[in-house]
Amino acid sequence: MSEINMGEVERLFSSAPFIRELGLELVAVTQGECRSRLVLAERHLQQDGFVHAGVQGAMADHTAGAAAASLVPPGQRILGAEYKINLLRAARGEALLCTARVIKAGRTLVVAEAEIRCRAGEDEKLVAKAMVTLAVVGEAV
Amino acid sequence: MSEINMGEVERLFSSAPFIRELGLELVAVTQGECRSRLVLAERHLQQDGFVHAGVQGAMADHTAGAAAASLVPPGQRILGAEYKINLLRAARGEALLCTARVIKAGRTLVVAEAEIRCRAGEDEKLVAKAMVTLAVVGEAV
Amino acid sequence: MSEINMGEVERLFSSAPFIRELGLELVAVTQGECRSRLVLAERHLQQDGFVHAGVQGAMADHTAGAAAASLVPPGQRILGAEYKINLLRAARGEALLCTARVIKAGRTLVVAEAEIRCRAGEDEKLVAKAMVTLAVVGEAV
Amino acid sequence: MSEINMGEVERLFSSAPFIRELGLELVAVTQGECRSRLVLAERHLQQDGFVHAGVQGAMADHTAGAAAASLVPPGQRILGAEYKINLLRAARGEALLCTARVIKAGRTLVVAEAEIRCRAGEDEKLVAKAMVTLAVVGEAV
Repeated sequence: MSEINMGEVERLFSSAPFIRELGLELVAVTQGECRSRLVLAERHLQQDGFVHAGVQGAMADHTAGAAAASLVPPGQRILGAEYKINLLRAARGEALLCTARVIKAGRTLVVAEAEIRCRAGEDEKLVAKAMVTLAVVGEAV
Repeated sequence: MSEINMGEVERLFSSAPFIRELGLELVAVTQGECRSRLVLAERHLQQDGFVHAGVQGAMADHTAGAAAASLVPPGQRILGAEYKINLLRAARGEALLCTARVIKAGRTLVVAEAEIRCRAGEDEKLVAKAMVTLAVVGEAV
Repeated sequence: MSEINMGEVERLFSSAPFIRELGLELVAVTQGECRSRLVLAERHLQQDGFVHAGVQGAMADHTAGAAAASLVPPGQRILGAEYKINLLRAARGEALLCTARVIKAGRTLVVAEAEIRCRAGEDEKLVAKAMVTLAVVGEAV
Repeated sequence: MSEINMGEVERLFSSAPFIRELGLELVAVTQGECRSRLVLAERHLQQDGFVHAGVQGAMADHTAGAAAASLVPPGQRILGAEYKINLLRAARGEALLCTARVIKAGRTLVVAEAEIRCRAGEDEKLVAKAMVTLAVVGEAV
């Protein structure tokens, strides 16, 4: 786990149809850490005009997966085992920013946490926090 | 909490842009229980061809929200507080089917669980299980 | 995973000092399912006279671990990876009864859910529900 | 929410029988943050000699509750709604140290996160991380 597996991180953002559809963009990646951004549009909202909790869960899970993927050796992949997310405030604004960070990198399990901030004008608030458990699997899942 | 609030349940499925975009359909609702369906397409997948964990989380959260909404009196709304989901198997197939059921309906908090099955040909397997905590809020959130 | 590993289940209840101290008793075990009981005493309570959430979490986690342990082949062990528990009602009464059930038995990860009921006189109510993720590890952890 | 409610925090540690039995000690409290310590003994262990996951969950939940209690006005109390904990490493050593921090203080819901470190000789490692959702309730629960 000594070099950043940039190929795998980029594949997660470029080859996942749901992520392209959602509009989730990779911002930066370092070893065990990943940042992503989502420019908000009407299609991300729930029935009362707030960002849907499912959008936030997807963003947290995927960004955490990328933080984990940055650590796996070539030939190995990351598969989500479970995640949990607290929605701290109703989110409304121009963009969501997510930072995910690996807090334990095991041989078979990786745990990452992810924070989502919502930018509305000059304001930026923490709107959600997640913990994500990921399994490290071989090539042929 | 004596009658089913069908209006609120239907509003959750018809007025949430993210849910329409995802393609999530309401199948049935009884008091404190809701079933939904998602016909799978390429846009729901992650980088290895499986249904994205974020799609499953969104489906579980929203269907649980609808199960909770079926119980709230007119003028009150449901807002997700947190959810957690275990991805039990890599999901691939024609459709996801979700059943959510309220296990505690409090005055300010409602807890629901949701199971997602994936149909692939004749086969139907449990692929995810979630628990969802929802806050009951007044009209003006 | 064809026979019940009774030895490992019994070891979990007889050789865990915290579980003996708590007073958690094994009631029954079948393949992938375990039931336990806790006769309530003052030492299980929090500051307002209700059963402490930590007692309920320990009961759910341990009983789920035993349900998982019933399935592992001799020579393998179960180690908790994460758990989450919803406290549905303030619990007060004579005893807690827990039923845990494996919902996915993988080669390296097992997922179980656990429900806790509280008995108070003639009454028995669901007070907590948990989901538990367990790792299957070799002998020498 | 302007002053630290020290009375309520101290009550949580002095008046909860389970916490006294466990041996959990209050170390420090500031507004929305609480630190606790548990000197490890044999009675805290599971069947393989590691600290029981239930002990860690109880410590995280209780310390998070105290962090939340530090913020509530006199006459209000904190009741756990749900918590989730990732066990990052098998824990063995002399003491557990927990730091809990409120990340959202709402009028009816408070969310806190808690980290547990295990001290073994000169070494101190993060062994668990939790997120806890707490309900703010009036005097007469």
